[in-house]
Amino acid sequence: MHLIAYRPANAGVEPEADIGVLADGLIAPLTSLGSFYKDTDGWLTQARTLRKGSLPLADVTLAVPVPPSAKIICVAINYVEHGKEGGLPTPPFPNLFARWASTLVTSGTPVPVPSTEPDGIDWEVELAAIIGKPLLEANPEQALDGVLGYTVFNDLSGRASQLQSMTLSTGQWALGKNLDGSGPVGSIIATADSIDPANTRLTTRVDGEIMQDGTTADMVFSVGQIIEFITRTISLQPGDLIATGTPSGVGFGRNPRIYAKPGSVIEVAVQGIVAVTNPIVARG
Amino acid sequence: MHLIAYRPANAGVEPEADIGVLADGLIAPLTSLGSFYKDTDGWLTQARTLRKGSLPLADVTLAVPVPPSAKIICVAINYVEHGKEGGLPTPPFPNLFARWASTLVTSGTPVPVPSTEPDGIDWEVELAAIIGKPLLEANPEQALDGVLGYTVFNDLSGRASQLQSMTLSTGQWALGKNLDGSGPVGSIIATADSIDPANTRLTTRVDGEIMQDGTTADMVFSVGQIIEFITRTISLQPGDLIATGTPSGVGFGRNPRIYAKPGSVIEVAVQGIVAVTNPIVARG
Repeated sequence: MHLIAYRPANAGVEPEADIGVLADGLIAPLTSLGSFYKDTDGWLTQARTLRKGSLPLADVTLAVPVPPSAKIICVAINYVEHGKEGGLPTPPFPNLFARWASTLVTSGTPVPVPSTEPDGIDWEVELAAIIGKPLLEANPEQALDGVLGYTVFNDLSGRASQLQSMTLSTGQWALGKNLDGSGPVGSIIATADSIDPANTRLTTRVDGEIMQDGTTADMVFSVGQIIEFITRTISLQPGDLIATGTPSGVGFGRNPRIYAKPGSVIEVAVQGIVAVTNPIVARG
Repeated sequence: MHLIAYRPANAGVEPEADIGVLADGLIAPLTSLGSFYKDTDGWLTQARTLRKGSLPLADVTLAVPVPPSAKIICVAINYVEHGKEGGLPTPPFPNLFARWASTLVTSGTPVPVPSTEPDGIDWEVELAAIIGKPLLEANPEQALDGVLGYTVFNDLSGRASQLQSMTLSTGQWALGKNLDGSGPVGSIIATADSIDPANTRLTTRVDGEIMQDGTTADMVFSVGQIIEFITRTISLQPGDLIATGTPSGVGFGRNPRIYAKPGSVIEVAVQGIVAVTNPIVARG
């Protein structure tokens, strides 16, 4: 089953987004996003009883599928080849960094390039796991059972800011991984029963040219292992999103390095499920 | 002027928090927190015309003074002596790391110790600057003009998780700096015109004993410099909170190291303005 986060057309961004079931380009409305994450099991049960929807996808505005309070947890270097292209060793446990949910944007949203990133912005297609149940000290089975579903995520990166921070002995990536609008995310969620997170093809196209073409089969730590590791220390809540790392093919790993500049368009996709396309623009 | 974020007693956490003016233990209600951050200048003007309030502080529940969508931006090693006690050099530009707003709690909220932090939790008193206006590429004057006010923040840290991440070549602090409930924050905001952020005394007491006693005069980067640096790359929005770093005296810097264990109580204060006290408890 595919869910979709949306707002009625012309509703603006103020009213809370809704969530519904998407099939054959038609939406069957379910409830508000906030209400949904309070009881995902109950709403999923109800979703399976809905008749085919009548609201055309073309008549809605896409919405970010997680609440503003969501933790966005990213996994660095979770593909061996991506570590190699960056000259970084494979970590022996998940290497986690934090993003703010306020960086998330929908497909179609222009992403501005800051003046501190004069060479442009780098792309990173990732499989995003969205949490459906509160999890703490989850074993592997509980971990996967706690995943509501999956979508695509583009972990757009400001490499100049990221590299500047890495000149420090304890450099953190807060700026380089939290540029304004730098978290394009799919509005369509494939429920966990409808996708194999360990065998999914991920692609990135920049101005139509394939830049990344990988499979989640190559992930170092599986979705279940990542969640098990996180929840040993902190809790996960419904709506939290885990970006599970990117395969090789980013601009930083090329010789010479190439980044997306204003005028470029980046498309990331989880093949067969959802694609997200964002124009890169000048700031201001 | 002192503002306070609160909920009517017995209202639970569901209704949105309110903000009001606090004087002599009495609150004059102003508006909802969400409404306030949409027009802080307008509401501050109105706040100055209010008569003294009649709602006793004892009759309300304290609330976190920023919205769930707020970015919590922390500055690492912003006091030379704190760097020395941790064996870390003073960074040549602000060293920023990210916290999720969902880790923020009010004074009085118990903070659980995860099983991955068997030695307990470390304390870090900080001056927190709360942003009042959208800021991007702010010059030093615009930066300070964009600060709504100040409160106290306790950047509670899971040192085992933090040190584990630092064994990686690109170790990030996402877990160690985002333990559940690890962001005690003042509900009282001293408006920017009522406090000198460069000359304020910060203290931490653990079970009554003074552990930190510093002054913001010793900060490496001033509030204005930090905001100027951040907004070169990313925007700040009303309600975003900057935790400006901690003076020396943390448990990690002592020989032997000492941390707060279940049963301990930690009080952090911006002297003369606000104190926040939290019991440390066992998880589960």
